[in-house]
Amino acid sequence: MANRIGHILTLTSFGESHGPYIGAVLDGLPAGIVIDEIFIQKELDRRKPGQSTFTTSRKEDDLFQIVSGVFEGRSTGTPITILIPNTQQKPADYDHLKDVYRPGHADFVYDKKYGRRDYRGGGRSSARITAAWVAAGAIAKTFLDQHYNIQIQSIVSSIHKIGMDAPFDFKGWDHAENNAVRCPDEKIAAQMIQAIEKAKAEGDSLGGVISTRVSNCPVGFGEPVFDKLNADIAKAMFSINAVKGVEFGLGFGSSRLKGSENNDTADKQTNNDGGITAGISNGKSIEFNVAFKPVSSISIEQEALNTMNQIETLSIKGRHDSCILPRAVPIIEVMTALVLADHALLNLKNAKNVNKMTER
Amino acid sequence: MANRIGHILTLTSFGESHGPYIGAVLDGLPAGIVIDEIFIQKELDRRKPGQSTFTTSRKEDDLFQIVSGVFEGRSTGTPITILIPNTQQKPADYDHLKDVYRPGHADFVYDKKYGRRDYRGGGRSSARITAAWVAAGAIAKTFLDQHYNIQIQSIVSSIHKIGMDAPFDFKGWDHAENNAVRCPDEKIAAQMIQAIEKAKAEGDSLGGVISTRVSNCPVGFGEPVFDKLNADIAKAMFSINAVKGVEFGLGFGSSRLKGSENNDTADKQTNNDGGITAGISNGKSIEFNVAFKPVSSISIEQEALNTMNQIETLSIKGRHDSCILPRAVPIIEVMTALVLADHALLNLKNAKNVNKMTER
Amino acid sequence: MANRIGHILTLTSFGESHGPYIGAVLDGLPAGIVIDEIFIQKELDRRKPGQSTFTTSRKEDDLFQIVSGVFEGRSTGTPITILIPNTQQKPADYDHLKDVYRPGHADFVYDKKYGRRDYRGGGRSSARITAAWVAAGAIAKTFLDQHYNIQIQSIVSSIHKIGMDAPFDFKGWDHAENNAVRCPDEKIAAQMIQAIEKAKAEGDSLGGVISTRVSNCPVGFGEPVFDKLNADIAKAMFSINAVKGVEFGLGFGSSRLKGSENNDTADKQTNNDGGITAGISNGKSIEFNVAFKPVSSISIEQEALNTMNQIETLSIKGRHDSCILPRAVPIIEVMTALVLADHALLNLKNAKNVNKMTER
Amino acid sequence: MANRIGHILTLTSFGESHGPYIGAVLDGLPAGIVIDEIFIQKELDRRKPGQSTFTTSRKEDDLFQIVSGVFEGRSTGTPITILIPNTQQKPADYDHLKDVYRPGHADFVYDKKYGRRDYRGGGRSSARITAAWVAAGAIAKTFLDQHYNIQIQSIVSSIHKIGMDAPFDFKGWDHAENNAVRCPDEKIAAQMIQAIEKAKAEGDSLGGVISTRVSNCPVGFGEPVFDKLNADIAKAMFSINAVKGVEFGLGFGSSRLKGSENNDTADKQTNNDGGITAGISNGKSIEFNVAFKPVSSISIEQEALNTMNQIETLSIKGRHDSCILPRAVPIIEVMTALVLADHALLNLKNAKNVNKMTER
Repeated sequence: MANRIGHILTLTSFGESHGPYIGAVLDGLPAGIVIDEIFIQKELDRRKPGQSTFTTSRKEDDLFQIVSGVFEGRSTGTPITILIPNTQQKPADYDHLKDVYRPGHADFVYDKKYGRRDYRGGGRSSARITAAWVAAGAIAKTFLDQHYNIQIQSIVSSIHKIGMDAPFDFKGWDHAENNAVRCPDEKIAAQMIQAIEKAKAEGDSLGGVISTRVSNCPVGFGEPVFDKLNADIAKAMFSINAVKGVEFGLGFGSSRLKGSENNDTADKQTNNDGGITAGISNGKSIEFNVAFKPVSSISIEQEALNTMNQIETLSIKGRHDSCILPRAVPIIEVMTALVLADHALLNLKNAKNVNKMTER
Repeated sequence: MANRIGHILTLTSFGESHGPYIGAVLDGLPAGIVIDEIFIQKELDRRKPGQSTFTTSRKEDDLFQIVSGVFEGRSTGTPITILIPNTQQKPADYDHLKDVYRPGHADFVYDKKYGRRDYRGGGRSSARITAAWVAAGAIAKTFLDQHYNIQIQSIVSSIHKIGMDAPFDFKGWDHAENNAVRCPDEKIAAQMIQAIEKAKAEGDSLGGVISTRVSNCPVGFGEPVFDKLNADIAKAMFSINAVKGVEFGLGFGSSRLKGSENNDTADKQTNNDGGITAGISNGKSIEFNVAFKPVSSISIEQEALNTMNQIETLSIKGRHDSCILPRAVPIIEVMTALVLADHALLNLKNAKNVNKMTER
Repeated sequence: MANRIGHILTLTSFGESHGPYIGAVLDGLPAGIVIDEIFIQKELDRRKPGQSTFTTSRKEDDLFQIVSGVFEGRSTGTPITILIPNTQQKPADYDHLKDVYRPGHADFVYDKKYGRRDYRGGGRSSARITAAWVAAGAIAKTFLDQHYNIQIQSIVSSIHKIGMDAPFDFKGWDHAENNAVRCPDEKIAAQMIQAIEKAKAEGDSLGGVISTRVSNCPVGFGEPVFDKLNADIAKAMFSINAVKGVEFGLGFGSSRLKGSENNDTADKQTNNDGGITAGISNGKSIEFNVAFKPVSSISIEQEALNTMNQIETLSIKGRHDSCILPRAVPIIEVMTALVLADHALLNLKNAKNVNKMTER
Repeated sequence: MANRIGHILTLTSFGESHGPYIGAVLDGLPAGIVIDEIFIQKELDRRKPGQSTFTTSRKEDDLFQIVSGVFEGRSTGTPITILIPNTQQKPADYDHLKDVYRPGHADFVYDKKYGRRDYRGGGRSSARITAAWVAAGAIAKTFLDQHYNIQIQSIVSSIHKIGMDAPFDFKGWDHAENNAVRCPDEKIAAQMIQAIEKAKAEGDSLGGVISTRVSNCPVGFGEPVFDKLNADIAKAMFSINAVKGVEFGLGFGSSRLKGSENNDTADKQTNNDGGITAGISNGKSIEFNVAFKPVSSISIEQEALNTMNQIETLSIKGRHDSCILPRAVPIIEVMTALVLADHALLNLKNAKNVNKMTER
């Protein structure tokens, strides 16, 4: 509980931004699955800081070590543990934050809930910990690819007020990795970069929306009624820092349509339901949007509460992203992969599989 | 799993629309909690069909029976089981649906996943089963009210293209129960009713958005990092039929703001984060929106796939809602109550409580 | 939690001895499994009171009703709910126990833990609730039989000081159902019956040991390291009223052997490990013993604490068993079946199965 | 699941005997609990090899590192992760075991279940991994001691055929730590040591029984009906390598008594139930026995199956214990501590606590 997600394929997350390691335990993966360390590193590199001028200048190499559960390049069926050292902690950077609660951050709620907190850089609430999720989730991605041919791709579809009109209709998602904001539409991408650079210059930050598509998911993933596939994906998404909204298919847009317009009927080529009906994958692409608020850490002066219940003026120093979305793209992909892999395994016990497994 | 939600206060749901009973087991409630049967019935009555001209004419009294876990008007600490008989099943109504998959419904995915399905009225996927959730959740509501003074209220803030501008700024949510659509703004409500009546006349259906506010939630509910309060609320919301989107506070709107605008700083009176920061309640009102697609069952003719993989023309008969939102209001409230009550109990083990409990 | 057992095949138990119903929700069974109501009733009849002169004279027919999850004689993949009405409650029988804590019973601990209790006949702590476990577990038995050819049989191997020498070596377990104590050795059975009749005449009660054998369990059931098959079976056994000990294979006896004697080597035909090695079924018969203390309810006078913290003399009236073991035989069988069926489903995700399932 | 134990205080175990680290994640501990690293090391030292002539000569210092969840000497409420490096791996020692299944070991079942195994020293099935359990459980011990004054002590009460007559009646359990076998009766201890030395000289091994007493456990720990305190303790015990039996109080002995003899009545000073009634702690000392089979690794020649399904003669070389019980004592203590601490936290939501917590 609390730091574990998944039903039979589970991710246990641990670590703080300024301890010696962050890490993850991936439990429940079948034995014999290929563990592709080069691919894991590649996914970590997509998340790591310092990929562009507007991400944090904290330079973490994010070199991981698998310390259990793998033998001769394949999973053994035992828990896979991943360690990522924190090499670039500069706790001194955070001394000025010891007694003040940064607006929009976990500082206040952690202090009130726990009666104490590790104030160094967010501690447990830092998005730093998602690096280990990425490593573990990369394994889930490989599993889905090799055993189901399932592909998961996320793109940045809007930043602040600059957005693609209909991201799921856009052809050419593969271009997303060609630019610093991971938006496949090059023109929009250029505007986004400009907007972020401007916000950075002002000491401000920007939010946006990430769109995700899962291709080749077979019919039948998702367990009604309380482990629906969309419910579990949504829970995973809201586990990611700064996420404020999740919608599937047309989402909030479908609330403004009539049934006759919205229904994905047999003759229409629509996917308004976003590939999930009644909580179960329906064989179409799974499509959803995730909204991020702008990063809370800004160097513009703000009024903040301090631990003595007074208001003080705060300008947050240190190494922060002006826009987190490009780096959040791989995080969303791998968390989606973890949910899907978990449901793939849960679905092994559906009727036709059990018959196939147990036929004598 | 699958039909259970919650961590230490759990709801197990069972039953189908056309079996003898639907029901729920509420496990984990402390002993000694008042079980107010009149209030439970009142909540059931808010959800039941037949409250207005545009809801299904299926007339279920939804009389419940508590068959375990209560002694002399209070919980005993053992599982509380609620049974609600299905008195108005008309399976014959569904004979014409035996071999066709209704667009937007669970028919297709259930058949493919399970290899069989109870085709009578949606069976397990019917929203009928939420009646038992309402009864169980009403108990959670009472618990939160009596022990924490927590109040939960949901309103319909938009139907189709008719919506309140800023529902959380509107004064007078208490008026919501005065009209058939449960929208507190009487003028908007009148327009909504008109729109629904028109859709009904056309054999069509409408979706919309429900806004929810939780008042008096103390700081500290929510377990990072994978049982965040918003993540668990979102999961509960996506468990409800026809829900396609969830957003907290400004939600998707915050993705279009700058950090300097969006941050709830000490001097601003804003609640852009919707009462939850870093997954933990921050002491402000918890506020979120839930988007519903229009009801999939419409009497307008649609093209539908059948079990022989052919396309046929379908007009859905039977007793259906033209707009489900007014009846969904209590469902959202009680599912929110169940999540909050679960987290209230989880939070008993925070630092200051443990010290208080265990001081010798 | 608390009233649920199992990982992906779960049994949720509810009800009290003197409420309108006891029941169970069996969730996670694959769709398409045959639900054999005649067999379920047969298993219930093996557990029901009144089968012999020395069991309680409370006459419950234990007629069950399945109210969800079954359609046209097979499981649908949705939760299967079983209700069994309590028809023979005589709460008045228990009035004299309202203020006194029966020795060996839950009365004291329930009162102290919960601050209140349903004193009518044990309430939730009554073994009455296991009737619903038997009904649900009978389904698991059928599943194991039809899909794996797994057979589970329990016998009474000792009562008080009368016991079989080496129950697992005894040929002819099938004779166990031929006599009132369910001991396959007719001579021993006769002595056991005599001993129980004597204890009954004295107002006393007797304990004993039940031995269980699972035949045809394939290699590989059990999830190391914390859901070992023996650990999960043991947990299920200790969930049964009056169980005080569990041992696998030679059990406590193996603690008195040398490694060279105890090891099941390739040339020996022994099964000292009882069919489970390192928590995983090894292909031999699974064999274990369960020790029951004598029934706590006796009509012989005892000193008992009352709710005013005084000691009073108590003679327990009402309808009680002098020896519970014969009726516990089917309970042990079905709880074993539930654990094995759960592990059968968990094991679907082992390496070779995943390859078979997902091969394209 | 699988590698996690506990309900709201959970231990996730990872690692293999011959990987770089073994470790554990302890999640759910309240914030503010003292983390006493000296005590943790002391507990590890009680488990570590090389304490006497008859334990394995593998010399692991078992120096642990806490890499998360602790700040300034106290828990923060976030997951506590413990790493213990494997410094003494000698995988070459195991080359001769690559293709043979050691009798009584996990080799065969792991290979059949997973289709592959890490054959180096038992891999995941090695008792080596319990070192991390000891470190995590030592924290639970401190928590129980400081907040509840609960003390947990285990002793070796029998080895092979040498045993204490009535271990729970023996005065002077504190002497157990004074000798190499951890038996408090010095005379018996001397005989035990002699017996082990003899078995060692013969290349054989011995089993035995460990008795455990929990003092000062308040009334009310344990959640009926499926998370009974005894059921959860038993499950934890059967998670430990080589455990074949568990009994509470008189255990199997109570099966040979009459109810009038066995009942712990108000006037008797007995504790035949072993401190747990109906699955809930009753305020007396919790007492139970755990039976261990003799260590399977012996240097005496045995017939063993190999991977080509042939029988070969095997003499197991390497560094093995002749009798594991003295080193298992701290393992049993800490696993008991983990279960009790979990139930202490679960019990926070009992009636009187909730009232105390939530009173306004």
